[in-house]
Amino acid sequence: MAIKVTVFLFWALFLVQIASAGTGADGKEWTAKNSDPALFNWMVGSPPPENRIIRFEDGTYFQYPQMRWSVCHFDQLMPTKRVSRGLSAPTQLQRAPLDGLNSLTFTPMGGDKPMTWGEAFEANFTDGIVVLHRGRIVYERYAGALTPAGRHAAMSMTKSFVGLLGEMSIHEGKLDEKKLVREYIPELAASAFGDATVRQVLDMTTGLVFSEDYSDPNAGIWMHAAAGNPLPKPKDYQGPRTYYQFLKTVKKQGRHGVDFGYKTINTDVLGWLIARVTGKPITEVLSQRIWSRLGMEQDAFISVDSIGTPFAGGGLSAGLRDLARFGQMMLEGGRYAGEQIVPATVIDKIREGGSKEAFKAAGYKTLLGWSYRSMWWISHNDHGAFMARGVHGQSLYIDPTARMVIARFASHPTAKNAKIDPTTLPAYHAMAKHLMTIEQ
Amino acid sequence: MAIKVTVFLFWALFLVQIASAGTGADGKEWTAKNSDPALFNWMVGSPPPENRIIRFEDGTYFQYPQMRWSVCHFDQLMPTKRVSRGLSAPTQLQRAPLDGLNSLTFTPMGGDKPMTWGEAFEANFTDGIVVLHRGRIVYERYAGALTPAGRHAAMSMTKSFVGLLGEMSIHEGKLDEKKLVREYIPELAASAFGDATVRQVLDMTTGLVFSEDYSDPNAGIWMHAAAGNPLPKPKDYQGPRTYYQFLKTVKKQGRHGVDFGYKTINTDVLGWLIARVTGKPITEVLSQRIWSRLGMEQDAFISVDSIGTPFAGGGLSAGLRDLARFGQMMLEGGRYAGEQIVPATVIDKIREGGSKEAFKAAGYKTLLGWSYRSMWWISHNDHGAFMARGVHGQSLYIDPTARMVIARFASHPTAKNAKIDPTTLPAYHAMAKHLMTIEQ
Repeated sequence: MAIKVTVFLFWALFLVQIASAGTGADGKEWTAKNSDPALFNWMVGSPPPENRIIRFEDGTYFQYPQMRWSVCHFDQLMPTKRVSRGLSAPTQLQRAPLDGLNSLTFTPMGGDKPMTWGEAFEANFTDGIVVLHRGRIVYERYAGALTPAGRHAAMSMTKSFVGLLGEMSIHEGKLDEKKLVREYIPELAASAFGDATVRQVLDMTTGLVFSEDYSDPNAGIWMHAAAGNPLPKPKDYQGPRTYYQFLKTVKKQGRHGVDFGYKTINTDVLGWLIARVTGKPITEVLSQRIWSRLGMEQDAFISVDSIGTPFAGGGLSAGLRDLARFGQMMLEGGRYAGEQIVPATVIDKIREGGSKEAFKAAGYKTLLGWSYRSMWWISHNDHGAFMARGVHGQSLYIDPTARMVIARFASHPTAKNAKIDPTTLPAYHAMAKHLMTIEQ
Repeated sequence: MAIKVTVFLFWALFLVQIASAGTGADGKEWTAKNSDPALFNWMVGSPPPENRIIRFEDGTYFQYPQMRWSVCHFDQLMPTKRVSRGLSAPTQLQRAPLDGLNSLTFTPMGGDKPMTWGEAFEANFTDGIVVLHRGRIVYERYAGALTPAGRHAAMSMTKSFVGLLGEMSIHEGKLDEKKLVREYIPELAASAFGDATVRQVLDMTTGLVFSEDYSDPNAGIWMHAAAGNPLPKPKDYQGPRTYYQFLKTVKKQGRHGVDFGYKTINTDVLGWLIARVTGKPITEVLSQRIWSRLGMEQDAFISVDSIGTPFAGGGLSAGLRDLARFGQMMLEGGRYAGEQIVPATVIDKIREGGSKEAFKAAGYKTLLGWSYRSMWWISHNDHGAFMARGVHGQSLYIDPTARMVIARFASHPTAKNAKIDPTTLPAYHAMAKHLMTIEQ
């Protein structure tokens, strides 16, 4: 009960928002226009008017449409740990802008009317999108609270960064994918993770009592969020006080290694594994192995719990072009600007994908035939496209055949990508096919 | 009473630390060596051992020697607002390292035994120091938790950045130094600041009921800190809830425009004035006018209160070399890398200094003959040196005659610079005189 009260204290308004996602207080459907942060002047003024103030502690930051501002300002709302770009000059992304891309048409999944790329930008509450073709920017557009020099929450795309670091640790022999989690983290021996292999954690085929259903106030994801909330816990709070403490409480359900089940806490275990075997927080590993080596334009950061543990499952914020740079490195088999940043075999292993059978069990209607591997989403389409994905429309779409990378940040009122995929995935594929017709 | 309780809740351990500054729990005098963060492994581990965890909420972050770690990690402890460097390549500081500087000797104030520059580095709990001569790095050294790619709390050096922005606003006609604060901020009309001029605020010659005595738990500085604390306020908290709300409560004492009295809240009023006339938070003004124009290596950031107000009086954290770059621009009359960043007349006005008579009243025994102008400390020595200064040993020392800039971050157990000046100011002057003998 104490835990429930606390969860409500921290997240009540978030829950209300989730419950009513898709409509404003006046019952009107939210649109990119009527939810535009510029309309509301959030946090503008000295001081801002009371009804324009966005706070972390009362949950207003994740109400809609406030969320459209918050996703670009998490560092101002909570403590964060930097992912340093280092001190060198950023690499320049070349530009080869193409005209007319906004009129490119595609047919949304389950629809019969064509939609244009420009219409999709609005319909998907896009905050920013960059399309790279052969490494050059052919399209770049911003909206909402995002600017080229700003940063945006990556949400669960964070997982794909951590998954890549996990695979790199395996490649280097620091982690053995066949070993059990408890061999690295004895503290997890009595939890569901104790007898799961590193591979099962990486591919989310662990059998866990854990609900990711945001609409259920008793769902594990809320307990996890309450544990990781960096604010002081209420006096009567009896639950776990950090991400790690929460992970120790997770119970097993069924068998490991059978079905894919998308559960954020697997990534937090992976983050723990990486921290344990490298002796460094994932922010530092990510900086050393990726961020400082791609000539990123901006530092990134990851939100932390009360003892400084980065939220591996979803805490990253980064610049849009830097997300695109990362995608380009993934596209090029781990190479970037003439250097091998990640071993090609690591990228190959991810692109190969996981078990389609295991994936099917999760019942994603917009991702038929896909699989999940090392915290990446693999389409297995004829272009070999693969993705990092995050709630509210975050996506990094990599199409090796078309030599195209799409980096997209968004603040859709709906968390679930099932509602967003129909107007994004076909748009991405249409862009890929279009670019393949172009001589550059 | 409610306020007192709250202040204790937030700051109790800080007070304990202040009260016992200079000695460890075992009664031994703190030294740079026995307080070295590397000895304690603060926040190292997954999770760190309980006695190695540093938290904001319980005040451990400002206990000694934890503070030596915290000063480099404020973004991980509290919400912060970025001061963006922009996206361009950093300017390179040229290097012309000089040998033997560690053996340079000087005589500490009030002492009779000479001390070496190297000894002073240790004695002053230096976390990092850069000496520029003619714009080139002749000496650069790090210790504690600071690295070249890290950032450190500037403490009250923040004020000098804000003071400069204030002078720039005056130069541009956005602020009139003769006008009363209430003409810009009617909300302050009933406070002590209402009938103070902008100039009096800039030079801290306001007459205020406000104590900056850290050892007094009822001092205004603690009420101010409690108001600005971004954590949720306790239920029984009745005091002001933001920096701005606190400023409105400040009562007048004596007359404005007579004596200098170092009171942090003047800078918070100046920050408010700048935000009011520019329509932007000082973080953004600082980014646009300074940070993005000096080719800084790193973003800086400023801590914020619960409504996102940057702490103008002391919230800045920045890289050491970036502090040096800023000093070099001040040295060169507002020019940097061939561009006029700040009008030369603005720099001249600051360097001219304020009233020595007004300054004398404050009774700084280590700063005889100095004055305070626009949030800068002016030595009026024969080199025309001037400084930005912050508690626990932060200093930016600019010597136009020697064409020398010293940027220094530190984490001395004592807050007051009166204890630190005797082994720093003579060292800086000795370095200046030494550099003047060198052909470069």
